[in-house]
Order: sequence, then structure tokens, then C-alpha cells
Amino acid sequence: MKGYIGLDIGGSKILGILYDAQENVVLKIKKKSKAHEGKDVVLQQIDKVIQGLMADKTYEVMAIGAGVPGLVDDQGVVLFSPNLSFRQFDLKGHIASRYGVPTYVGNDVNVAMYGEYMKLARPGVKNVIGIFVGTGVGGALILGGELYTGQGAAGEIGHMVIQNDGARCGCGNYGCLEAYASKTAITGYIKSHMGRGAKSELEVLDEAILKSSLLKASYEEGDALVVEAVMRAARALGVGIGSLINLFHPDQIILGGGVMEALGEAMMPEIIINAKVNTMPGLLESVSIDRSILKDEAGTYGAYQLGRKLVL
Amino acid sequence: MKGYIGLDIGGSKILGILYDAQENVVLKIKKKSKAHEGKDVVLQQIDKVIQGLMADKTYEVMAIGAGVPGLVDDQGVVLFSPNLSFRQFDLKGHIASRYGVPTYVGNDVNVAMYGEYMKLARPGVKNVIGIFVGTGVGGALILGGELYTGQGAAGEIGHMVIQNDGARCGCGNYGCLEAYASKTAITGYIKSHMGRGAKSELEVLDEAILKSSLLKASYEEGDALVVEAVMRAARALGVGIGSLINLFHPDQIILGGGVMEALGEAMMPEIIINAKVNTMPGLLESVSIDRSILKDEAGTYGAYQLGRKLVL
Repeated sequence: MKGYIGLDIGGSKILGILYDAQENVVLKIKKKSKAHEGKDVVLQQIDKVIQGLMADKTYEVMAIGAGVPGLVDDQGVVLFSPNLSFRQFDLKGHIASRYGVPTYVGNDVNVAMYGEYMKLARPGVKNVIGIFVGTGVGGALILGGELYTGQGAAGEIGHMVIQNDGARCGCGNYGCLEAYASKTAITGYIKSHMGRGAKSELEVLDEAILKSSLLKASYEEGDALVVEAVMRAARALGVGIGSLINLFHPDQIILGGGVMEALGEAMMPEIIINAKVNTMPGLLESVSIDRSILKDEAGTYGAYQLGRKLVL
Repeated sequence: MKGYIGLDIGGSKILGILYDAQENVVLKIKKKSKAHEGKDVVLQQIDKVIQGLMADKTYEVMAIGAGVPGLVDDQGVVLFSPNLSFRQFDLKGHIASRYGVPTYVGNDVNVAMYGEYMKLARPGVKNVIGIFVGTGVGGALILGGELYTGQGAAGEIGHMVIQNDGARCGCGNYGCLEAYASKTAITGYIKSHMGRGAKSELEVLDEAILKSSLLKASYEEGDALVVEAVMRAARALGVGIGSLINLFHPDQIILGGGVMEALGEAMMPEIIINAKVNTMPGLLESVSIDRSILKDEAGTYGAYQLGRKLVL
């Protein structure tokens, strides 16, 4: 039978899934990336996952798809991935030549959001903006039913400026959406205010970035500082989404990532009201704003779809 | 011989040009729109322009293209055009059935920027963002070599929020790019500061919106308030352009419109330095930021190209 491999290659782990032609999960393998041991070790770990998924000879693997964190060009060359110690590395060529099958390699957020799009989109939906709210804020643009990457790095939604000269962002600039809406920004806001005497049940002064589950628990207990930090993130997302609707007039916006998974239910009303305020009259009504549904398997599922597309 | 008509239907005048297949201008006709007299009069004026261009029987008109101010759907129906007193009017169907030729009708900024794209773009350039800085700030997205309009209204670059809760915009929202960079915003800034005692040679307190030529003259005389208002607009455009590059990683940005025509030379250095600061490291180098070249004839030329495309 025909099989297709989807890989989600992250900085800490590699998840690989063998799917059949009907989108069923046949086999799942997870290995550490060991990125701190350098590129060659990461490649060995990728090999172990692929070989494990290929061990069952019932399935003939027709294509491999993969998402990796970082900047990937449209030829599947990883230009820069600090999390994987890759730089100017032709990962697509490497996998394709080793396994002799058509291979797709793309940016992880793009790949995962393409997966969400394929899973969620209603018939006729062609233009979808994906926003991934986690440690940072990433994005993906699906336009005319295809991933749009421009010269390679398009979709940096987290680095739209929503507040000129505003909060300092990890990218070095000021006022980016990421500087308000990411988990890093939420943590920073809470820490900074606790350092100035604000009360919170959270003990965060030593933690680099708070866990989403901890944020969720404190939010649900009504911890005022946490509630304010989370609502501030939701408002910023609404401002960004308003601008995105004015720019793209898309069919759908999909929100995913760790922050949305943990706090999406609480944040969505605030996100939507702020999106409405910042959208041109008449445009919002025709755009649906939804939360992602695939969670951990969005990356492998998107990679599967993009790989399979090569042989359809 | 084959001929093609390009129409630029504005709120005050209608410009029509008959082009031959080699892009040469054969004949040019300009009439008042008489928009204040209602839709039927506007349609009569359009007829006069088209009939005038068709009078020379040396040319057989193969297609008609037109740009109109306002919201136009992808079927050429003008959903809403306050400047022309049109609402839910199938202008494409109206022209096509009257003259029996394939017809294209689109938004004026989209059409004009498509013209600039066709004229300016180097070979291989596929993704171009057009920004039109005039009374307002409009935009057009050319992605994969085609106009991208989303559900119809995409490209509202002037209504990206660059300063959350910032300056009040004509659209009712706060902090839009248009609220800083348009001629309306430049006039408002100068007026407001003169009202509070700032010195300027300009006498603007009674003028609704300053003429670009007057702004240019005062800028060149070094009028400090005018210089500050114009540089503030340039900085805002730089911030917006940085966000646009992070989102689209396009090949090219084209800046046009009355403000850019009058003050572009003065504004470009400030625009570019601010775009650079607001762009992710490494992206700006591969994007060219250029001024438009077609001026008054961008609209008719883009309409000609979009019309001709229907019969190629």
C-alpha cells in the first residue's frame, strides 16, 4: 500500500508519522533532535525516525514532507535555523537523495498552518491567514489555496509593528505584535510588574518563560496580574488581526500555538472585539476567526499533505 | 488594426485612452464625471468617452478596461463607490453588453498599480506591493504576477494600524498608516500646530486639504512645520513598509500618488531608513523600494493591460 511520511523537526524533538493515502495514522515515532550536538547528529536522528517509519514493508513510502524551524527557501534549502544548527543546508536534497522519494521541506509554522488549512477549511476557502502564538508569534499565508512565501521569509506576522516605538521585541525592533502577544511578552509583563510590587500568586521572577499550563491555572484562579497580561496579549492580537483583514480580506483566520491552546477560550472574545474595532467597516462579517484543531500533529499532518501533493 | 481602451473613471473626471497592441497611445479623451448629477449622468459621460475613442474606425476595439474608486468585486460589480454615486452596480456587465467586447472593471488603485507593475517590474519580479499616497493611502497587492484582492477589498494598506490608539483616522479607527502619511494627515498636522501657535509661512487654516504643489514649495523653502509634517509622514510610511516586507517578503515596493509625486524625492531617504529599522534583519536587502513612473496615465495603462489580458 502507499504510505507518506510527515516530519515535524523541532529544536528539542523530531516527530514522524507514517500516513496512508486516506490520511490515517499508521505509525508514529518520536526522537530527541539532539540539536546541541550539531548538524550531523540531528541528521542521524532524522534518519532514525525515517528508517523506523519505513521498517514496515506493507507500505511503500511515496513522498516525505518536513517542517523545520527557521528560514527555508522555496527549494527546500534551510538558510538559517539556529535551533537545529543548520545554515545554508539543502535538507530537501539530502533526504530526497538518501531515500529516493519526492521530498518537501518548508518552515515549520508554514507547514503546520497548511495542515490546519487542509483540515479546517470549508469548501471554496482559498485565502487563510494562520497565526501561531507560542514563545514567539509566527504566521503563515495561504493565498489562492497555496502557501505564499514571497522571496522565502513571508508571513512574519509577529513582526508587524502595531505600536510604533512601543515595547521592545526580541528581534531588536520596538512595537512588534510579538512584543505584546507572545508567551515571552506575557511573562515579561508579569515579571516586570511583580518587580515593581504588583501582587500575583505566580512565582515567576526566576523563570525564563512561563509554562502555558501555569498561566492557564493562574488565569482561571483570577490572578489579576495574569489576567491583565493575557488580556493585553489578546487586545494586541485583535489589533494585528484587524490590520491583516484590511490587507488580505481573507476567508479565514486560524489561531494556533501553545498560548492559544491553553488560553484560547479565554482570549477569543477579547481578540474578536479588538479585531472588529480595527477592521474596515463591512469586512469582518465575511471573515471567520477560528482556533486551530490539530494541536501537536498539525506539523506532521501539514508535512504529509505537502509531501503527498508532490506525487498527486 | 487592433485597439484597446483603458479608462480611469474618477470622482471628478474620466480619462480614456485608446492604445494599439504595441502599447502606443492612439487617442486620449477627458470628460467631467459629473458625479454629483447621479449615476445615469456618470454612465452617459463614460459612454461619450468610449464612443469618442471608438470613432476612428482604423482601430477595432478588442477589449475595454476600467478602474473606479471604491469597492469592486471580482466580477466587476461596483459594490460601493461614494465618489461616483454607484452602489451594487454591475459596471462590467453594463459596458460589456453595450459595446460587445470583453471588459475588465476593478478598483482604481489596484488597476493603476498593476499598470506600474507592468511598466516597472524587472523580469522575474512577481510579488509587488503598491502604495498610493494621496488624499488617503491606498494599496495594491500583486502576488504571483496577478492582482490579489482576497474577498474583494484586499490591499487597504492605509488602514494597517501602526500606532495602536494613535492618531484618529478618517475611517473612524485610531493609529492607521493613513492617519499619519496621507495628505489629509499632513494638512491636519500643520493646521493643528498652527492653531496652537506654531509658525509657518503657509496659510492653511481655511483650506480643507493642502495642494501637493503648495506643500512642495513650502517644503523646499524650508518651512519648519511643513518639513516636520512631511518627515512624520515619511517615517510612518517606513514603519508600514517594514511591516509589509516582514509580511510579504516581496520583490518590490512601488510608491505612487500625489504626495509621492510632489515630495517623493525629499521623503524617500527617510522612508527607506525607517523601513530598514522596521524590517527583519536580512530581508530588506533583497527588496527594491521605488517610486512610480507612470503618473497620470497609470490608471488608463493598467486598465489597458487588464483589459487586453482578457483577449490574449
